[in-house]
Amino acid sequence: MMAVSANHEGGFFIMDKDLVLEWIKSNNLKELHEYLKKQNVVDIAEFLHELDDSTLAIFFRILEKEEAANVFSYLDNEERNRLIKTFNNAEIVNVINELYSDDAIDFLSDMPANLVTQLLDKVDDGVRKDINHLLKYKDDTAGSIMTVEFIEFTKEMTVADALAKIKRVGIDSETVYTCYVVENRKLIGIVSAKSLMLSDSDVPIKDIMKTEFIYAYTSDDKEDIAKKMKKYDLIALPVLDVENCIVGIVTFDDAIDVLTEETTEDMQKMAAIVANDKPYLTTSVWEHARSRIVWLLILMFSATLTGSIISNYEHAFEVMPVLVSFIPMLMDTGGNCGSQSSTLIIRGLAIDEIKFSDFFKVVFKEFRISIVVGIVLGLANGIRIVVLNHDVYLAIVVSVSIVVTVMISKFVGCVLPIIAKRLKMDPAIMAAPLITTIVDTLAIMVYFSIASQIFNL
Amino acid sequence: MMAVSANHEGGFFIMDKDLVLEWIKSNNLKELHEYLKKQNVVDIAEFLHELDDSTLAIFFRILEKEEAANVFSYLDNEERNRLIKTFNNAEIVNVINELYSDDAIDFLSDMPANLVTQLLDKVDDGVRKDINHLLKYKDDTAGSIMTVEFIEFTKEMTVADALAKIKRVGIDSETVYTCYVVENRKLIGIVSAKSLMLSDSDVPIKDIMKTEFIYAYTSDDKEDIAKKMKKYDLIALPVLDVENCIVGIVTFDDAIDVLTEETTEDMQKMAAIVANDKPYLTTSVWEHARSRIVWLLILMFSATLTGSIISNYEHAFEVMPVLVSFIPMLMDTGGNCGSQSSTLIIRGLAIDEIKFSDFFKVVFKEFRISIVVGIVLGLANGIRIVVLNHDVYLAIVVSVSIVVTVMISKFVGCVLPIIAKRLKMDPAIMAAPLITTIVDTLAIMVYFSIASQIFNL
Repeated sequence: MMAVSANHEGGFFIMDKDLVLEWIKSNNLKELHEYLKKQNVVDIAEFLHELDDSTLAIFFRILEKEEAANVFSYLDNEERNRLIKTFNNAEIVNVINELYSDDAIDFLSDMPANLVTQLLDKVDDGVRKDINHLLKYKDDTAGSIMTVEFIEFTKEMTVADALAKIKRVGIDSETVYTCYVVENRKLIGIVSAKSLMLSDSDVPIKDIMKTEFIYAYTSDDKEDIAKKMKKYDLIALPVLDVENCIVGIVTFDDAIDVLTEETTEDMQKMAAIVANDKPYLTTSVWEHARSRIVWLLILMFSATLTGSIISNYEHAFEVMPVLVSFIPMLMDTGGNCGSQSSTLIIRGLAIDEIKFSDFFKVVFKEFRISIVVGIVLGLANGIRIVVLNHDVYLAIVVSVSIVVTVMISKFVGCVLPIIAKRLKMDPAIMAAPLITTIVDTLAIMVYFSIASQIFNL
Repeated sequence: MMAVSANHEGGFFIMDKDLVLEWIKSNNLKELHEYLKKQNVVDIAEFLHELDDSTLAIFFRILEKEEAANVFSYLDNEERNRLIKTFNNAEIVNVINELYSDDAIDFLSDMPANLVTQLLDKVDDGVRKDINHLLKYKDDTAGSIMTVEFIEFTKEMTVADALAKIKRVGIDSETVYTCYVVENRKLIGIVSAKSLMLSDSDVPIKDIMKTEFIYAYTSDDKEDIAKKMKKYDLIALPVLDVENCIVGIVTFDDAIDVLTEETTEDMQKMAAIVANDKPYLTTSVWEHARSRIVWLLILMFSATLTGSIISNYEHAFEVMPVLVSFIPMLMDTGGNCGSQSSTLIIRGLAIDEIKFSDFFKVVFKEFRISIVVGIVLGLANGIRIVVLNHDVYLAIVVSVSIVVTVMISKFVGCVLPIIAKRLKMDPAIMAAPLITTIVDTLAIMVYFSIASQIFNL
């Protein structure tokens, strides 16, 4: 390791672009081939971004077959399309044959349907069968992210038989760290590589297999699967069909990706954006605009409701124009309080820290918090108004409005996400933007009612 | 597996509380012991929540030593404290001796210092040395989440020697799927369990070890480490000290936990809450209030700036009170637009999809999006005003204000997080609440300036 420390930076590999381009230009492909063999496929995939279309193809063809497929699986769609354009169909078919089935699906599901048919005609029979099978699973299900490469044992095999089988087929399996014991295609047990390595070679598999294990069904939601794997610290999870036959496995790296994607989508929804799993930079201006406009329009027209309430009190601020100047502060404070509560609850629900049965606990907690927070904010503001505006009644109106607004907004902010969850809606929609709009309306009503009462407007 | 399907629900284990309580009451501990041996430790840990203090202790003592430690590592602090209270020190010491070092640290770092000293006096020498060593690492570093249990080889060993060593020490190592080749305490290569299983037994380790690998240093930020493991799909990552000696490993399950925690903290910051890694329900009302009040006060007083700008235009809305009714709509739309942009950028930065070098690309993209979005929203509102208020000039004032507000808010929303990242601040602070406050002020200024111009106010 230390010998190559020059191209490391805190453990990251840094590929030398100039060197690579130099080798390509001087056609010194043997040197490049050796250099690439030492690199991590993730880094090679990242490096491809920096090459133009002509060098890209040369570069990719130098990679060994399996390495090429590996690199391909780490590319984003933009890069894949760039690469595919420079390939003939035979080359694409070669890549597909080498890809793990989940990566092949990931790639093919973004290709035009006619091209997929055309390519699948040419791939190996076994690969085609697997892919056609996997293409049937709906997005967002365990079936759509699983891979069909896994190792099967029978319970009569010995540890030595099992190790021999891993040696025979292991290279092709995405993970060999958990193997599956099957009887009549039904999954009856799992064996970890750890127990294989720790057991004597003549021990039968049935003595070391675990018959209690976690599994999933192909139609299960992929987010639930990922959470289950996180909860139980699983490297891989077997996926069964309706007849309890094992048809694939989901590996931890895919689970992490699912968790990250789902969180990103949650955040987008919480910011009133229609969720989209494409990276920011490769999403077009039109797509961005479209995914943002829907909610903006809804919220904009909802906010006019607040405006019309204000119109009802025109006579109030004609008499006391200073009332208007506290509107932004009240609206912002209400919005912020509501968004604090809703964010905590939405996140708590997402990571299963909060359940529907905690409803009253949560509401009571938020109620007490809102009293503390409301009084502090109300007092701070009241003092400020007395000092600056020398108007005790105004101070009382604004402070009481703040306390009530804080209480309403924390109530709305914690209740709506939990109710949404209960109604099988996505709690992430009940976030800051929507809560703010609702709270604004209520805050303005409270404020002007109190002001009208106290000042007899 | 199918034999026990009665206590499964979609692959989850459901423990039977009544049955367990029945066994405890009737002192049928042998039956309970057998039952628990079949359960997953994660489920047992979850089940402990449902037991009261007296049954809790009985229940926990029935578990086997290693299982008990495992269950303990999955408990949250509240449960641990409840359990610790019923234990004598010898029992606590037993648990600590059995825990993996990272879990022991996790537990001890939340205990009072004098209790820690007292307990450490009694644990095994090796354990004490490891723990004392680990306690020195700062929170948020790789050192603080690593475990010191890993398997070391020398490069002269054969595969057979290596497997024999795993058999000898493997049980105690948190993961045996990557082993580390060490020379003079320096890490010179890694060997995966996969290559051990796939190689013949007389092959020397130096022939199958990988000398190019990803590593981290003890002082590296734990979030960076977790992201690195996600990027390279690593099950474990070796952690080196300043002299490049391997001192521990970080495993994928801890990496997933770090990623989840960091995302939760990001979300809290984005909602103007001082980040806190305690679960919502176990955080007290005072702690909740304290972590929310700081930002609320800052933002509340900032919002009064918007109010004072409004005061400057008192004469304007004395003449045209209808102007006031559009304030909420403008403020909300500006806030929502800004929060859409800032959320996408903050998340993009967090998952390394966006870098500082993309600054101009991002700003230009948001600029074009804001034109599209602004025009759509402006037109929609303009038409509504013409239809409902029959006032073309008012429609023009409000629509132009919306277009300008959208453009300003998308600009502020995308620029501030990137700049924060560049200044090594946390971009998550530049989120909806702060952006909204800034954008509100600007929106009100724009609106009243345009209105004053057009209506000669």
